[in-house]
Amino acid sequence: MDKIITIGREFGSGGHEIGLKLADALHVPFYDKLLVSMVAEEGEFAQEYLDEMDEKVDIHIAPFLATRSSYSVYQQPMSDRIFFRQAEIIRKLADDGPCVIVGRCADYVLTGRENVIRIFLYGDLEDRIARKGKMLEMGEDELKKHVAATDKKRARYYRHYTGLKWGEKENYDLCINTSRTGIDGAVRAICAFIDASPAVSKP
Amino acid sequence: MDKIITIGREFGSGGHEIGLKLADALHVPFYDKLLVSMVAEEGEFAQEYLDEMDEKVDIHIAPFLATRSSYSVYQQPMSDRIFFRQAEIIRKLADDGPCVIVGRCADYVLTGRENVIRIFLYGDLEDRIARKGKMLEMGEDELKKHVAATDKKRARYYRHYTGLKWGEKENYDLCINTSRTGIDGAVRAICAFIDASPAVSKP
Repeated sequence: MDKIITIGREFGSGGHEIGLKLADALHVPFYDKLLVSMVAEEGEFAQEYLDEMDEKVDIHIAPFLATRSSYSVYQQPMSDRIFFRQAEIIRKLADDGPCVIVGRCADYVLTGRENVIRIFLYGDLEDRIARKGKMLEMGEDELKKHVAATDKKRARYYRHYTGLKWGEKENYDLCINTSRTGIDGAVRAICAFIDASPAVSKP
Repeated sequence: MDKIITIGREFGSGGHEIGLKLADALHVPFYDKLLVSMVAEEGEFAQEYLDEMDEKVDIHIAPFLATRSSYSVYQQPMSDRIFFRQAEIIRKLADDGPCVIVGRCADYVLTGRENVIRIFLYGDLEDRIARKGKMLEMGEDELKKHVAATDKKRARYYRHYTGLKWGEKENYDLCINTSRTGIDGAVRAICAFIDASPAVSKP
């Protein structure tokens, strides 16, 4: 397997677990939250701050500012600086060889590369709430709000850095409703898709 | 295999061929244009007229008319009468056993059934134009317009009869970009997805 697999995912659709099992099945490295630590290791940002800012965009700074000629790295919002640093790390990892990367707009960051397979995982809302309910100690109402807010945060982050709509099938090669397959079934279906994909992503 | 597989598809994404090969691989019946002939066989509509109206909606009649108490079958637009007759046939076929059905809003018509797997096939526009170019004798400009117009027709038909957005991943269990897999690869990926789907569609 010589592919880079990127996984976008709705909150609670099992993206982390599926990505991990997929990487294991393909015998390739897995990058998820680890990317945050890799940025932290460079020392510019504290791990705690990076955790807080993970897949978040500082919406108070309008993106158009980036086009001003007077714009410099010192005026760049912190979230942008983190994103661009993370994007460099993602491109470096992709240079190094096949791997599975979850979130962080990796599908977009790797635009133009020929060996990228872009996957999006989604699920029925009640299933996603139930899955997260087993992991998080929250009341039902709080949990529902948390799922909706996290999806919204991811959508905003994706839109900000890609200009595209998060989860829209045109941005991906394969979209799977994991409420149908469960975790292991999704891994099997993705493996079959990878095997069946000699063709490559378009720039 | 005890499932009903419905396939929605962008024009030129290989839906007919993939559906046919999938039905063959699963040893189940395949329904595509055949549904039109099944309506024709009942004698109410001429085959020629049904061919002309296939997956088309008469947009000049507003859907809200259907809610008027004075509304009767005689005021129903022909396209509605054809749709509802076809929907009855689709439900009957699904009662009879597993099968593959392409188009005709079959995913929506079979809402609430537990053994339905809803697939949507899409593809890169240039690939879809190229595939159709091999089948149809048209100049390039005419071909491009024909592909765009056919997608638009299908989207309008789907919206009219389901109230949903055609091709939006939430309406399907699996969405595949067939530009990545080709025809046979898509069939293999769908078979793996079906094998991996013990869970069932929600009403």
